[in-house]
Amino acid sequence: MSRQAGRGTESKKMYWYLPFISPSASMHLMNSELFTLTYGALVTQLCKDYENDEDVNKQLDKMGYNIGVRLIEDFLARSNVGRCHDFRETADVIAKIAFKMYLGITPSITNWSPGGDEFSLILENNPLVDFVELPDNHSSLIYSNLLCGVLRGALEMVSQHLPFQ
Amino acid sequence: MSRQAGRGTESKKMYWYLPFISPSASMHLMNSELFTLTYGALVTQLCKDYENDEDVNKQLDKMGYNIGVRLIEDFLARSNVGRCHDFRETADVIAKIAFKMYLGITPSITNWSPGGDEFSLILENNPLVDFVELPDNHSSLIYSNLLCGVLRGALEMVSQHLPFQ
Repeated sequence: MSRQAGRGTESKKMYWYLPFISPSASMHLMNSELFTLTYGALVTQLCKDYENDEDVNKQLDKMGYNIGVRLIEDFLARSNVGRCHDFRETADVIAKIAFKMYLGITPSITNWSPGGDEFSLILENNPLVDFVELPDNHSSLIYSNLLCGVLRGALEMVSQHLPFQ
Repeated sequence: MSRQAGRGTESKKMYWYLPFISPSASMHLMNSELFTLTYGALVTQLCKDYENDEDVNKQLDKMGYNIGVRLIEDFLARSNVGRCHDFRETADVIAKIAFKMYLGITPSITNWSPGGDEFSLILENNPLVDFVELPDNHSSLIYSNLLCGVLRGALEMVSQHLPFQ
């Protein structure tokens, strides 16, 4: 069961750890608990590797960004969502389709800026933090910062390939 | 959306990064792609941290063990599975219920030893390795070794609390 991943010589060296996801790949529905626990192991490893919480937060954002850049391909292929016509539609697609698809939850969208170019997503049931209790010496850790990076990477790719009108 | 996990002073300091999962927690069904990519980020971080693949394999097993120790509580609560009467039943529960629940796949069970105390699980559609291509300098890396550790931890807990008859 611990078979090694296939090895190849293609031009994927830099991000070999971020697998390409093909839209034709079979879709696996899973409960989120194993993901929750694995994410906890990732965060704690970063806490061992970096001296302060700010650096951990940066690293989580960077990892998330690289994940988002890949995940967007899968999202576009599976969701059949077309180009968004305004930022409110983008917010809806993120909250109601993307979060539902990849985390099984639907955040609420609030705090729209007067210009309509900023909003907040409130995750009332964030599976990543289920029952996590951070110790006092990690008070600056933004535990779920990977998700911010994922959104940043995914949206950057969308704005390159599917520019908003 | 990047709210911090709640902090407390209870006796969970040692494994704060391995959240307790309550059976009453809501169950989130998610697609496996975000997990696949996050796992890739974890493995690559370990490859940066440790000098050779053997140490990475050990660390993945150790992390998996700690996850399995926690995950078994969730599994017993959700699956409603009772005590296994023999090791063949244990193999069936692992492959057909646990893997299906937490990874969305059902491995095949093969290679039974004559004594009936060893078997292999073959993951034909392992979501962890979808499209992962390991570079040549990681030829000894057992990419999915976390799963071995999860099984080890979970089974150890079961044999403590629910001894086989």
